[in-house]
Amino acid sequence: MTQAIRIAIAGYGNLGRGAEAAIKKCPDMELVAVFSRRDPASVTLLDSAVPVYAMDEIEQFQDKVDVLILCGGSRTDLPEQGPYLAGLFNTVDSFDTHAKVPEYFAALDKPAQAAGKVALLSVGWDPGLFSLNRLFGEAILPDGETYSFWGKGLSQGHSDAVRRVPGVKSGVQYTLPSESAMARVRNGEQPTLTTREKHTRECFIVLEDGASADEVKEAIVTMPDYFADFDTTVNFIDDATFSQEHSSMPHGGFVIRSGVSGEEHHQQVMEFSLKLGSNPEFTASVLVAYARAVHKLSLAGERGAKSVLDVAPGLLSPKSPAQLRKELL
Amino acid sequence: MTQAIRIAIAGYGNLGRGAEAAIKKCPDMELVAVFSRRDPASVTLLDSAVPVYAMDEIEQFQDKVDVLILCGGSRTDLPEQGPYLAGLFNTVDSFDTHAKVPEYFAALDKPAQAAGKVALLSVGWDPGLFSLNRLFGEAILPDGETYSFWGKGLSQGHSDAVRRVPGVKSGVQYTLPSESAMARVRNGEQPTLTTREKHTRECFIVLEDGASADEVKEAIVTMPDYFADFDTTVNFIDDATFSQEHSSMPHGGFVIRSGVSGEEHHQQVMEFSLKLGSNPEFTASVLVAYARAVHKLSLAGERGAKSVLDVAPGLLSPKSPAQLRKELL
Repeated sequence: MTQAIRIAIAGYGNLGRGAEAAIKKCPDMELVAVFSRRDPASVTLLDSAVPVYAMDEIEQFQDKVDVLILCGGSRTDLPEQGPYLAGLFNTVDSFDTHAKVPEYFAALDKPAQAAGKVALLSVGWDPGLFSLNRLFGEAILPDGETYSFWGKGLSQGHSDAVRRVPGVKSGVQYTLPSESAMARVRNGEQPTLTTREKHTRECFIVLEDGASADEVKEAIVTMPDYFADFDTTVNFIDDATFSQEHSSMPHGGFVIRSGVSGEEHHQQVMEFSLKLGSNPEFTASVLVAYARAVHKLSLAGERGAKSVLDVAPGLLSPKSPAQLRKELL
Repeated sequence: MTQAIRIAIAGYGNLGRGAEAAIKKCPDMELVAVFSRRDPASVTLLDSAVPVYAMDEIEQFQDKVDVLILCGGSRTDLPEQGPYLAGLFNTVDSFDTHAKVPEYFAALDKPAQAAGKVALLSVGWDPGLFSLNRLFGEAILPDGETYSFWGKGLSQGHSDAVRRVPGVKSGVQYTLPSESAMARVRNGEQPTLTTREKHTRECFIVLEDGASADEVKEAIVTMPDYFADFDTTVNFIDDATFSQEHSSMPHGGFVIRSGVSGEEHHQQVMEFSLKLGSNPEFTASVLVAYARAVHKLSLAGERGAKSVLDVAPGLLSPKSPAQLRKELL
């Protein structure tokens, strides 16, 4: 048997925990270390046999790790850690600040090129799998339009906003794709739709004792920027229901390409969708599959920053190219 | 401006015509020739300015064509033409005899390697885009099951079968995915389903004068192999409706990966689907996008047989890697 791919995780929050769980499902991989900025003694992994180290020890592990999965956040962690770690390890990350991708790509490319490492950025579902499907859509049906819908998914920013409303004890907000907008797109209409027209919002609220449901509802649905321009539903529930039904982090969405082909303008619709019981666990599962591809790219002599658009899909699999052709084509 | 990619088409039936139409939508490509086994004078293209040549003249065009799109059938044309043409041109084809892919791959690889050409096989939607989605599914969610459903689509073999029933003047058969089976899969049940349990069949029949609808229906729904074990609906229509509503070649289908992640076994569902107004035009559109990738692979020094699993998605696009990162990630 060939040697397992030696994986390490940098950052152990929801995403890091998801990566640990995903690696367990891959017999060709071994999690060799987790790095954290917290006191290693305070970090409890799913598998207590894997050692946890302080982030500032990471340079000593250059020869012991094939691919490092960066599980920090896009706002502050990755812009700082990414370029530094790309000069030491093959890396894969889920950088998702769409507007700053070109800048971040350049910041990773230089150290990775110099060190002969591969730095794969913006892996996950959006950016990531959704990006791939946007690409397939526009490349295959150039005469058409691409539509992205998000949800049903927990929105952190909007949940924070409802929790700031006086009288709200606990609250979450889900973004939902508009069924009527999706129906128009699937029907080949190619409508012009704003993000607001494509989505609705749904809140689940536990009230403080004595708070007025009517007042809380009014405060939410009229809140500027967050809710005022959306079709918003507010549901009131009790504590038990809240903790039972609203403690996971579901998400998902749709990428739909609606185009036409031929002299008779036949309608052609391509659709990719995700229904995720846990957003961080799914993102981590994508990161882990792409970590395998990073290892293969590195073995093949590739170097520098790359995105999912640069990775041949077969590299994600533990199977040989011949086996994949036999089983999947 | 860079020079347009010089494309040629070998074989001018529904697929070849679809390829011609798809190339027209790609400003970075130029259709330089069509090759046919028929008398070139008898072949009428959509664009009469493109020259048609006899297939046995094709060797003279080696220096004039960047990529040759093979639009012959998988049963007899491609097994013979593919290996021969792969030694002369960069090629892309839609070989879809799933069980014979490994054999066909080997038959293409040898001449393509020797000639320094790229031969991309089994491009289309199944095999092709469906293969890619099966791969993403099993690589990202290894703990899960993949389900393929086909339809709604015109089935040539079953349409031929209903037309052989006495009393049938005209007839078509569509295969439909079973809504109840799809609902179970999307729900995360991971059921065991045979092809028969996953599909239903629907026939549209024009009766001969004086034929009995009851007898024709009985003959169809009890037909062994073709219909007896399926949930089959038979509809009787008139000539005008038949020619108006049943003369195109729709198809489509679904690839659904249902898996679980994490310690709490969160359900994760990935779904890819196609709703195609014209099956041959869509397949041709996929071939044309991959012809662009073949050209880039060849320019990069690649050679030999390849499948869609070997092709980085970014190569399908006329846009630069930097532009794609900016727009799609």
